[in-house]
Amino acid sequence: MQFFSWWRSLASFRVRIALNIKGISPEVMNVDLMKGEQRTETYRKLNSQMLIPALVTDEGAVLFQSMAIMEYLDDVHPHPNLLPSEPLARARVRALSGIVASDSHPLVVPRVREYLEHELRLDEAARTKWIHHWLAAGMVALETNLAQSKETGAFCQGDNVTMADICLVSHAVGCNFFKLDLAPYPTVRRIVETCMKEDAFAKAHPLKQPGAPAAV
Amino acid sequence: MQFFSWWRSLASFRVRIALNIKGISPEVMNVDLMKGEQRTETYRKLNSQMLIPALVTDEGAVLFQSMAIMEYLDDVHPHPNLLPSEPLARARVRALSGIVASDSHPLVVPRVREYLEHELRLDEAARTKWIHHWLAAGMVALETNLAQSKETGAFCQGDNVTMADICLVSHAVGCNFFKLDLAPYPTVRRIVETCMKEDAFAKAHPLKQPGAPAAV
Repeated sequence: MQFFSWWRSLASFRVRIALNIKGISPEVMNVDLMKGEQRTETYRKLNSQMLIPALVTDEGAVLFQSMAIMEYLDDVHPHPNLLPSEPLARARVRALSGIVASDSHPLVVPRVREYLEHELRLDEAARTKWIHHWLAAGMVALETNLAQSKETGAFCQGDNVTMADICLVSHAVGCNFFKLDLAPYPTVRRIVETCMKEDAFAKAHPLKQPGAPAAV
Repeated sequence: MQFFSWWRSLASFRVRIALNIKGISPEVMNVDLMKGEQRTETYRKLNSQMLIPALVTDEGAVLFQSMAIMEYLDDVHPHPNLLPSEPLARARVRALSGIVASDSHPLVVPRVREYLEHELRLDEAARTKWIHHWLAAGMVALETNLAQSKETGAFCQGDNVTMADICLVSHAVGCNFFKLDLAPYPTVRRIVETCMKEDAFAKAHPLKQPGAPAAV
């Protein structure tokens, strides 16, 4: 199995945590987004969307989109599971995940930041304002739900790690990268700290991957 | 069951198709995004993220995020199913869905268009260019995958309707709303046309909902 990813990619980070939880260690293939390696012909053949991560099975099947990959891993390696068994709980986990993966992260990925800089010619302050605006919108939505719901436990959904925790942690690390203050989000911070004590999360941290700098 | 939605919302459109496929007819509650009804206190209490759609069960549980709602409907009403049974096929359906729901649609929703207009003060031409850029990026990704994959059949994944077709149709209708020419995407168009012959899709069309104009 090959895992095409990059240290800084938050979507790759999510899948890396899921792989660690499942105890799966694929060969890691680096795709440097800042060098545009996702646009090389080799990678385009693999994933025409030119986004990472992608996971290639031993049989050569190519999986893409971080949420779809995590659902796949849960389908084929159900223990330990990333989704609870009760339908309403599953829906809440997927919805919290969606706040990150659908509503927040897509607005701050490299291709969008490039458009803001090169097409709209926004200066750095305006670009940072954009990034903080959408990261914070996601954090407000997460904090509000997590602080108000009686479903919240040690983790987002009760006392077991789920896909929602993986997405939450990726979002929090993204906020750190872009220097967004997390003080207004105490429930988020508590859960993120609890997650980061787990090996599967800690070892997956972007700054611990090959090619990563000591800090951003 | 209550379904909070709005005729023009593409995420609501997706859930409406899924409900039709499952033969479920909830009470429809209109939330007019252009009037800002998603920001009223009543709706905020229901969905603090102030986004639609939301689905409220007879027991009062509130579900949000279109993908999570569709997965829930598939969990509790599995027939007819929106996902195939084979894990790789499920992953492909979810990944194609993600191209729409995570990578494309979040970049053109009302709150983003409002930011472009009021915060970045882009004129209409620049806003339309933004919208077309991201809608087309999604269409290119979908067309490339659908045209190249041997998994593609009458529908996105073989010859049965899946969540991917629902997302594809919502994206195509979104492109129509914003006058993006779909001629470069023949495989997409073929599948969309096939879908729109099905009652579940045709009856869910945004322009056939209460409050919708005759055309956009």
